[in-house]
Amino acid sequence: MAKDTSVAEHGSFTAKDYTDPPPAPLFDATELGSWSFYRALIAEFIATLLFLYITVLTVIGYKKQIDHDDPCGGVGILGIAWAFGGMIFVLVYCTAGISGGHINPAVTFGLFLARKVSLVRAVMYMVAQCLGAICGVGLVKAFQSAYYVRYGGGANELQAGYSTGVGLGAEIVGTFVLVYTVFSATDPKRSARDSHIPVLAPLPIGFAVFMVHLATIPITGTGINPARSLGAAVIFNQEKAWDDQWIFWVGPFIGAAIAAFYHQFILRAAAAKALGSFRSQTHN
Amino acid sequence: MAKDTSVAEHGSFTAKDYTDPPPAPLFDATELGSWSFYRALIAEFIATLLFLYITVLTVIGYKKQIDHDDPCGGVGILGIAWAFGGMIFVLVYCTAGISGGHINPAVTFGLFLARKVSLVRAVMYMVAQCLGAICGVGLVKAFQSAYYVRYGGGANELQAGYSTGVGLGAEIVGTFVLVYTVFSATDPKRSARDSHIPVLAPLPIGFAVFMVHLATIPITGTGINPARSLGAAVIFNQEKAWDDQWIFWVGPFIGAAIAAFYHQFILRAAAAKALGSFRSQTHN
Amino acid sequence: MAKDTSVAEHGSFTAKDYTDPPPAPLFDATELGSWSFYRALIAEFIATLLFLYITVLTVIGYKKQIDHDDPCGGVGILGIAWAFGGMIFVLVYCTAGISGGHINPAVTFGLFLARKVSLVRAVMYMVAQCLGAICGVGLVKAFQSAYYVRYGGGANELQAGYSTGVGLGAEIVGTFVLVYTVFSATDPKRSARDSHIPVLAPLPIGFAVFMVHLATIPITGTGINPARSLGAAVIFNQEKAWDDQWIFWVGPFIGAAIAAFYHQFILRAAAAKALGSFRSQTHN
Amino acid sequence: MAKDTSVAEHGSFTAKDYTDPPPAPLFDATELGSWSFYRALIAEFIATLLFLYITVLTVIGYKKQIDHDDPCGGVGILGIAWAFGGMIFVLVYCTAGISGGHINPAVTFGLFLARKVSLVRAVMYMVAQCLGAICGVGLVKAFQSAYYVRYGGGANELQAGYSTGVGLGAEIVGTFVLVYTVFSATDPKRSARDSHIPVLAPLPIGFAVFMVHLATIPITGTGINPARSLGAAVIFNQEKAWDDQWIFWVGPFIGAAIAAFYHQFILRAAAAKALGSFRSQTHN
Repeated sequence: MAKDTSVAEHGSFTAKDYTDPPPAPLFDATELGSWSFYRALIAEFIATLLFLYITVLTVIGYKKQIDHDDPCGGVGILGIAWAFGGMIFVLVYCTAGISGGHINPAVTFGLFLARKVSLVRAVMYMVAQCLGAICGVGLVKAFQSAYYVRYGGGANELQAGYSTGVGLGAEIVGTFVLVYTVFSATDPKRSARDSHIPVLAPLPIGFAVFMVHLATIPITGTGINPARSLGAAVIFNQEKAWDDQWIFWVGPFIGAAIAAFYHQFILRAAAAKALGSFRSQTHN
Repeated sequence: MAKDTSVAEHGSFTAKDYTDPPPAPLFDATELGSWSFYRALIAEFIATLLFLYITVLTVIGYKKQIDHDDPCGGVGILGIAWAFGGMIFVLVYCTAGISGGHINPAVTFGLFLARKVSLVRAVMYMVAQCLGAICGVGLVKAFQSAYYVRYGGGANELQAGYSTGVGLGAEIVGTFVLVYTVFSATDPKRSARDSHIPVLAPLPIGFAVFMVHLATIPITGTGINPARSLGAAVIFNQEKAWDDQWIFWVGPFIGAAIAAFYHQFILRAAAAKALGSFRSQTHN
Repeated sequence: MAKDTSVAEHGSFTAKDYTDPPPAPLFDATELGSWSFYRALIAEFIATLLFLYITVLTVIGYKKQIDHDDPCGGVGILGIAWAFGGMIFVLVYCTAGISGGHINPAVTFGLFLARKVSLVRAVMYMVAQCLGAICGVGLVKAFQSAYYVRYGGGANELQAGYSTGVGLGAEIVGTFVLVYTVFSATDPKRSARDSHIPVLAPLPIGFAVFMVHLATIPITGTGINPARSLGAAVIFNQEKAWDDQWIFWVGPFIGAAIAAFYHQFILRAAAAKALGSFRSQTHN
Repeated sequence: MAKDTSVAEHGSFTAKDYTDPPPAPLFDATELGSWSFYRALIAEFIATLLFLYITVLTVIGYKKQIDHDDPCGGVGILGIAWAFGGMIFVLVYCTAGISGGHINPAVTFGLFLARKVSLVRAVMYMVAQCLGAICGVGLVKAFQSAYYVRYGGGANELQAGYSTGVGLGAEIVGTFVLVYTVFSATDPKRSARDSHIPVLAPLPIGFAVFMVHLATIPITGTGINPARSLGAAVIFNQEKAWDDQWIFWVGPFIGAAIAAFYHQFILRAAAAKALGSFRSQTHN
């Protein structure tokens, strides 16, 4: 018998109170004929563009400030972390109803593994996100032409003193935190029980991004979003950014896969079903 | 068939689940006889006054601090960005039920283009907002007479090293982020599906303002609100602030128009209707 | 006809959709026999104690840090503003259901003027708040005995270079922002229309406090809460803090009175009723 | 008659509107046969691991930055306080539906005293939390091997200049603030009245942690979570951290006990029932 106690557990319910939607098919031809599919791609493109525009502009502007006039007056790493987390909050809020609010290939990958989006949709989302990211950073370069290259272009690179393994580990754990939060926020079981939980969902997702940036900016600059890392690398186009680029794809995809596994097989019914004998006298 | 997946999509619904309110008429004579119309003007006036009072006071106080005693002790650009974003959150929350919570001529302009307010209401709101902004900055000048002029009066000016085009571009994209968030938060379709989404609406709107300030304070000081820029220019009244003033009207109005177009014709039914053949086997 | 547009206006309603509770009596003898009345006093006492404990400890700890080891490492004025605003958010959330979550004699005074609490309750709340504040600052002095007096004891004083009139004005406008937000958050009309608005109420109230601190710490240290100013003055007990003390009672009470007047007579029905002829063809 | 006024009191209700769940038994053998029990342990383990990983990494990264390159560029104590508070917000949000979202032996202890979890569950949660904390700090040490020991390992220690009594007092009051917020957020009476309050619950709980860190980092580094203090001490393993360790267990447990007593006997029905004669003419 479940004795979950502290927050958000009020009233009993049976396992029938919610329905898992059926797994998304790998290929869904009807999607391609739907305007809402292309609209979702446009929304992902624009959202990722705005995400990179605001965040990389914040990074460049901050580095210019501490260089030029006022060493202590800039927004600081705290301000940069807010820019990344706050934009994800705003953009997930804005696009949740249109595209699901991924804005990140690692999130799309995790949701694909959990069979919540089709393969076609997952691939097309990732393409839209990467193109959006490139355009967003390109806009920053156009606006900050005097400073963009001098201040590192917002590119993710392994910082001096850290091994490849540490960088990869930091990306894996950081992406796990983000994708685990996404899964927790969108769990249909949770929604059935606490029907208003989705209201808050974009806020903890944004905070997860904020938190990971506080912790890992000193190590990798914090990727946890392959589109963000690719967009900055394409526009910055320096050797070091390209050399490290694989870390910012492999790490986030592994982290997202672990989060999908953790949510689907440990926290959700999947494992419990496999261990059916365990549950003979219990529900949930 | 829509497969929007991640956040806030629970349960299916048909296109009939919500009703678009009819477009607001251009001229609505009955408004002028309604107390609620004048009450809304007063609310916009007071809210914009308080917005400028708190934010410009924060700017002046910060510059005084770093000059006088404690280079690291001031609120920093991060604090200034919080002041702008946080006040918009508080004031949209307070005035949403009275005036719709615009507090910004660019927001009013965008909502007018989408036919959500009448022309009469839009013009009168903008007048009230500009008067409120002038009074708010005037109050700051009265309270900070020793420092107001010395520290730039909170006026928006193109910073050294940036071209007019960059300043205009930064205002366009920044206002797009804000007005896009406003449209997303107030979409009647979204409200039908997630009836509690409006609860959160003032928070992402405030965060959008916070984010844009983090990114563009180094370029233009961040306008994205013509009343804010006009109020500071009128009270500060220096040549440079007046020379650049047009940027802070043209930029935000273009950004708001693009956001209105993006929301109404790309994200909403308007485009889908035009492309009716596209939707033959789908809804939404 | 109301055309309030942007946020939080979904569906029409008539003026009968909500009921104003009857005005609280000035004297309500039955209150004095109710355990819930004394429980509310205890909750106000404890909440104000915790408010002063956390905030003044943050102020003293910050001043010690910048003095001793790390000039830039302290929480800064931004951190102090967060401490005041964040604690109000937490404590209003915790005590709203017990005492109404005032934690501030100016808020109690404003709600008394609007006839939402009886005179007896208002007076007793203020006594509980002041005693709580004194105990909270006393605890800080006990814990920070080496630094408490040296770093100003968290007392509100008019800063050098500002006239009494400016200090009073800053307190009036600052308290107006706070009490206006409190009235907006607790308006029964609003609650009828957007039944979930109260969920968010503590957050904008906390943000209002945060914003006012960002703006007016350089002028008065920011009172806007007479219990907070009295508690610090009693424990710090220096001449300057006592000389300025009246500003931190008169200012907040005037600000709260203006906010109560603005909400009851401009924004709410009271004025509309007085101007009945105005409303002949409209409702709301 | 209750006259609670300001926030969140809309409509009357009788004492029958909610049901207190029955007290949890001390030993509940059926729990041990339930998959959901082990799932909750795993969730507590992973959440505490992530909590320590992100927060201690932020502490170490910050100290490295101010040492190496940019005295003003680090996240500051404000950023560290955000890391602790923000992660609690995210993790309580994610685990609330699985384990109740304790992530802290002091919270578990308080809920056990209030008979909301069984003894078996309480003990097993604490073990899972402590193991998770050790693993989380171990991960930081592995990732930051060059800096972990040099920068203090994130361990809680009494700072120079403060007596043991002050440190203990700071931990008691700080934990009281946290556990009092947890009880307020999860009160079944409150939930009945304001059915959407739980939506917000993780946010004020996270803010309570944020606030306490702002105030007491200069005194003890802020524990208020024995698993956090133990995990850092085990991995850091220096004499001073072990000598002070008892403070970070005794203080939080006393604070949690006082909060449980305050909530159950002062704010809730327990005391009112004992004083039944008091309530003869009132309901509550």
